[in-house]
Amino acid sequence: MCQLLGMNCNVPTDICFSFTGFQARGGATDVHADGWGIAFFEGKGVRVFLDPQPSCSSPIAALVRQYPIRSKNVVAHIRKATQGVVALENTHPFMREAWGRYWIFAHNGNLHAPSTRLSTGPSTGLRTGFAPPLDGSFLPVGNTDSEYAFCWLLQTLREECGDTAPDHDQIFEIAHRVAREVGTLGEFNFLLAGSDFLIAHASTQLSYIVRKAPFAQAHLKDEDVTVDFSEVTTPDDRVAVVATVPLTDNEDWQTMPPGTLWLFAEGVPVRQATTVAGVKRTAPPATGGGEAQERS
Amino acid sequence: MCQLLGMNCNVPTDICFSFTGFQARGGATDVHADGWGIAFFEGKGVRVFLDPQPSCSSPIAALVRQYPIRSKNVVAHIRKATQGVVALENTHPFMREAWGRYWIFAHNGNLHAPSTRLSTGPSTGLRTGFAPPLDGSFLPVGNTDSEYAFCWLLQTLREECGDTAPDHDQIFEIAHRVAREVGTLGEFNFLLAGSDFLIAHASTQLSYIVRKAPFAQAHLKDEDVTVDFSEVTTPDDRVAVVATVPLTDNEDWQTMPPGTLWLFAEGVPVRQATTVAGVKRTAPPATGGGEAQERS
Repeated sequence: MCQLLGMNCNVPTDICFSFTGFQARGGATDVHADGWGIAFFEGKGVRVFLDPQPSCSSPIAALVRQYPIRSKNVVAHIRKATQGVVALENTHPFMREAWGRYWIFAHNGNLHAPSTRLSTGPSTGLRTGFAPPLDGSFLPVGNTDSEYAFCWLLQTLREECGDTAPDHDQIFEIAHRVAREVGTLGEFNFLLAGSDFLIAHASTQLSYIVRKAPFAQAHLKDEDVTVDFSEVTTPDDRVAVVATVPLTDNEDWQTMPPGTLWLFAEGVPVRQATTVAGVKRTAPPATGGGEAQERS
Repeated sequence: MCQLLGMNCNVPTDICFSFTGFQARGGATDVHADGWGIAFFEGKGVRVFLDPQPSCSSPIAALVRQYPIRSKNVVAHIRKATQGVVALENTHPFMREAWGRYWIFAHNGNLHAPSTRLSTGPSTGLRTGFAPPLDGSFLPVGNTDSEYAFCWLLQTLREECGDTAPDHDQIFEIAHRVAREVGTLGEFNFLLAGSDFLIAHASTQLSYIVRKAPFAQAHLKDEDVTVDFSEVTTPDDRVAVVATVPLTDNEDWQTMPPGTLWLFAEGVPVRQATTVAGVKRTAPPATGGGEAQERS
């Protein structure tokens, strides 16, 4: 399996502190040594750093750890390969463009061949694992179940929305449908980000925290590093951090129940819905023009 | 304007030496201080490093200069903005996926609004410059003429080739048509790369060199750095380097005549064609199964 790290903020924020702990899990304090990657949205643009080397010894990871790139949406991933060889093309996160926007996706889990309509399609060759019937509008470059799932998600969005770019609610609702459907095929923890949102699916394991005023000190679990967020923030800052396993040992991380999908925007969770088979209820969107409501 | 740097090799090769000289032009020895980027193909995967800061002072450029990433196809760009603000989404090179392959594009030049069929299309909004009628399969995220041209090129490839991935000859022929067409609208020097080819269009200014045995010393123009390639190569290595302005002062760079399109594969130019309006002849592909012929 792999580990995921996501960040969604209301002001551009650097992720150096969280990434320091996360990076250590890529071969040092944990076994995820089959590559890593991180994507930073900056406005409409996105920077993706990828390295098939373990993050604990990667010169690029050392740069990311020390170079404060300020972003409102970040997705990072450290890999323990299950499907697909260790190679750059199989290194998460993956990026595509649709509707003139970049989309970023990373997955933790393992998906198996289904017996349903997600059977092997014409464009997926001899693949024996999860291989949805892709129409060619988005195709995987590598051979991971994860990239197939990302392409399937974008294809479903395109089919539903046509030429009109989806809004947050449409993205959430279609991600919800795909999470329910693909989630029957195995573990499907994922992060999906655009320039102004982060969607997180807790299939088996994911936690989050929202840091906001009054800010306090935080201490990493994986390295003896402490930061006093009150020294580096303003009172209006809100930063949501999502991780497979909590990154700090003195903060109150919220466990995201298995089978839940979350939409984060402006540093808070604004929608949540269950994705366990048989449960169809989707939480309504946050109402009103003020601060989004936490539904945790 | 901007500057381009490309590399195409028959074995994975690092570009640290050439990039050292190229990087200096991004705000130190030349004026191209509006960001820079570089893309490295490694197998089917690609790594893109982007920075809207000047390359001469960019920590990411310092990493790329020192970290030998071995690649058979590299595209780099330093920017002097003409169209589009200085922002990450306007930083070259640009990347898209089509047919399950990554495509990389960088442009040096300035394209103007045409009065022909490349007029403003429905999906390009209020843009007053070059704005071809894009159908939505590939759309620009930023607002440079360059990214519009890249999307137009990919759309034309998709229209011509349908669901079947084009081979080198098809890519060259469609790039030739687009270079002739778009080249009437202004300066259109560009590099287009996939995992196993590099196409270069000399609209106004571009040079190349093929380094092969017997290898010799090379000395940068922009920094006092010398490398002895005989110490870092094997006799079978072939490395083609393309640059807006030659990078070394003691090697025999070939000027690519304005209005010529070139296809490089395995470290040598294998096809060349003129793109000046009115000239329709396209050089035939290299024949035979042996070493590709240079047509320069």
